[in-house]
Amino acid sequence: MQSEIITIGDEILIGHTVDTNSAWMGQRLNELGVEVVQIRSISDKRDAIIDALNQVDPQTKLVLITGGLGPTKDDLTKHTLSEYFQTELVFDESVFENIQDIFRQIGRNISHLNRDQALVPAAADVLSNKMGTAAGMRFKKNGTYFISMPGVPYEMKHIMTTHVLPWIEKDLITANIFHKTILTQGIPESELAVRIADFEDTLPPEIKLAYLPSPGIVKLRLTARGQAAELLQQLLERKVKELTALLGDAVFGEDAKSLQEVVGGLLLAQNATVATAESCTGGFIASQITLVPGCSRYFLGSVVAYDNRIKTQLLNVPHETLAEHGAVSEPVVRAMAEGVRALYGVDYAIATSGIAGPDGGTATKPVGTTWIAVATPAGVLAQQFSFGANRERNIKRAALMALDLLRKQLLKAKNA
Amino acid sequence: MQSEIITIGDEILIGHTVDTNSAWMGQRLNELGVEVVQIRSISDKRDAIIDALNQVDPQTKLVLITGGLGPTKDDLTKHTLSEYFQTELVFDESVFENIQDIFRQIGRNISHLNRDQALVPAAADVLSNKMGTAAGMRFKKNGTYFISMPGVPYEMKHIMTTHVLPWIEKDLITANIFHKTILTQGIPESELAVRIADFEDTLPPEIKLAYLPSPGIVKLRLTARGQAAELLQQLLERKVKELTALLGDAVFGEDAKSLQEVVGGLLLAQNATVATAESCTGGFIASQITLVPGCSRYFLGSVVAYDNRIKTQLLNVPHETLAEHGAVSEPVVRAMAEGVRALYGVDYAIATSGIAGPDGGTATKPVGTTWIAVATPAGVLAQQFSFGANRERNIKRAALMALDLLRKQLLKAKNA
Repeated sequence: MQSEIITIGDEILIGHTVDTNSAWMGQRLNELGVEVVQIRSISDKRDAIIDALNQVDPQTKLVLITGGLGPTKDDLTKHTLSEYFQTELVFDESVFENIQDIFRQIGRNISHLNRDQALVPAAADVLSNKMGTAAGMRFKKNGTYFISMPGVPYEMKHIMTTHVLPWIEKDLITANIFHKTILTQGIPESELAVRIADFEDTLPPEIKLAYLPSPGIVKLRLTARGQAAELLQQLLERKVKELTALLGDAVFGEDAKSLQEVVGGLLLAQNATVATAESCTGGFIASQITLVPGCSRYFLGSVVAYDNRIKTQLLNVPHETLAEHGAVSEPVVRAMAEGVRALYGVDYAIATSGIAGPDGGTATKPVGTTWIAVATPAGVLAQQFSFGANRERNIKRAALMALDLLRKQLLKAKNA
Repeated sequence: MQSEIITIGDEILIGHTVDTNSAWMGQRLNELGVEVVQIRSISDKRDAIIDALNQVDPQTKLVLITGGLGPTKDDLTKHTLSEYFQTELVFDESVFENIQDIFRQIGRNISHLNRDQALVPAAADVLSNKMGTAAGMRFKKNGTYFISMPGVPYEMKHIMTTHVLPWIEKDLITANIFHKTILTQGIPESELAVRIADFEDTLPPEIKLAYLPSPGIVKLRLTARGQAAELLQQLLERKVKELTALLGDAVFGEDAKSLQEVVGGLLLAQNATVATAESCTGGFIASQITLVPGCSRYFLGSVVAYDNRIKTQLLNVPHETLAEHGAVSEPVVRAMAEGVRALYGVDYAIATSGIAGPDGGTATKPVGTTWIAVATPAGVLAQQFSFGANRERNIKRAALMALDLLRKQLLKAKNA
């Protein structure tokens, strides 16, 4: 089934409000196998609303509309919808009772503007809104349903969850849909595409593959859609296995997991602890690890040794090593990892030292040169990377690479 | 002048990606006085792209298009635009050189997919993209300009800032436009609005005020638009001064400066150094400070003391203080700030200890309770905050508040 989303409001067009409503509605519809073919943000003017409604694709069976239902003058949606659906506004007792309830709760008197919110188009089914004073409305025209909801996110979500989604599932759809996302690290999108080209070309029609890239991480989403739920799920599982096998240890997890969550899970499973010693990443790896609730069970902390004096004083990096090889070098990053492992008494340690840029590069060590070490109970592993010229991205990529190196060492220890 | 935005990509329609690009572009266009009448998100399919281009309003003079320019098979924008503008793809040497440069920097080989990114429609002006391998393109048809850019936000912003916005300002619009942004910290948007209501109501018609809120920071942007350049600039300067005077030390900077840059500038001016001791923020403050190039001149590093053992061992927080008051307490956060100040031998130090959530709260110390201390040559200042239930936002707000407390202490020292 095909659907469209229309969000009404100048605040979206001038960029004051990011349209998060559409993403939320798109996700929910997609989960139900309802295809969203278009999201359109328009001005809260009569003509813009009428034009958008006239331009709905004839094959679209469901249109979700948000915004423009407030009590003030610039909220024109209700009147425009009444005009478009050739109906008139009538006073709705149940909507008015809800408005009264809400005003009682906040201890305020009802203004005539709010009383007018109890006027609803006669042709619409009212979708009650316990979270606010503007009711949702459902219209039908030429076999297409139009749902109008307030633009306030929690009111829209309340009406969607209470009325719209259960009704779609019960009355509007027939197909089943399943998703599975595979998370990969360390391979750029273009290289991934080459590696899985044959897999992609031979996918059965029920399965779709999507690339969702973000800096350093590419998510591969497989979507299965069709009638036989159990067969679809089996097919999806099989394809996930094939894809995972093709990509080997570049796959770090599934679905919405972050790399630091996966690392945290591996540490917990081994009852192991970790700390970091960070120069170029300046505490960013530690802060990423800290984003995971409950990380105190395995994360002890970090020494951000931005200055070389801290590297020698706290991490026991020998003066001579620093003088001979420079801070951005294999011996120094190894010593940093060993130093923080001993200082914090942890099982695993990560260390970074690099030239994040934009300045500070030399001919032999250009901006982006980064050494990363992982100390484990079995020894220290160090690797050099060459990132780009953008400071912020170099820091992020170094953090991802460092966490991924640790992940691979944890996997090795697990399988040993 | 009327414009439209079209974002291409199934990831937006299924809600995997929130369309922040449109909001950013809408803001920039609005600042230049270019009206956005519609934002439309469509599927990355040929028919959807052709339909959307056909439905552009005849009065629209500028269409900004993002997405679908990646190297993989599902990225169809370039071919579809070539078809729509009746042109063919030709190899562009300068685009290929840029692709080679980027691959050289990251030390990888160019695949044939990336080589194909150097093919551009013959009828298009190429808008170079130093941040990625997909070039921007500008077409013209029946008096309307169409600009196609990658959907990766920093690549789009780079092309917009380098090519599109200066070109709009120079060639498409006639008015002079000047902007000035004032950065504020610590006052919520609604409270700011009340405080500057009179100022806002009496602004002359040439000046517009925009609120650009982000977690913890509200940017107030004044835009002057008109013909007489010099008078406009004087008027803008006067209004900036008035607004700054109204808001006092809630204003931490102007234009694109970050709070950590402002703090860095103040430290440099006093030839002073700083370090952090972080519990709940887990290194995030250090990583924010590190984002500023050249921060090694004043930032020595950090001790992330997530575990209480590290608080006592490295930061000299007495066992008894921890046992008596708990880690999230004034005496502990004071001791942490003093501890890291002594350990790192710095002039200023920041310390944090809080319950970031989502669990770990108690009746007397609910989730969001956070202590922040700033140690200065003149003594230690500590303050308690109550943030919300969201872990990530609590960490970010704590970091902002901590940097702002340090900023105010640095200002005090400067004016002493």
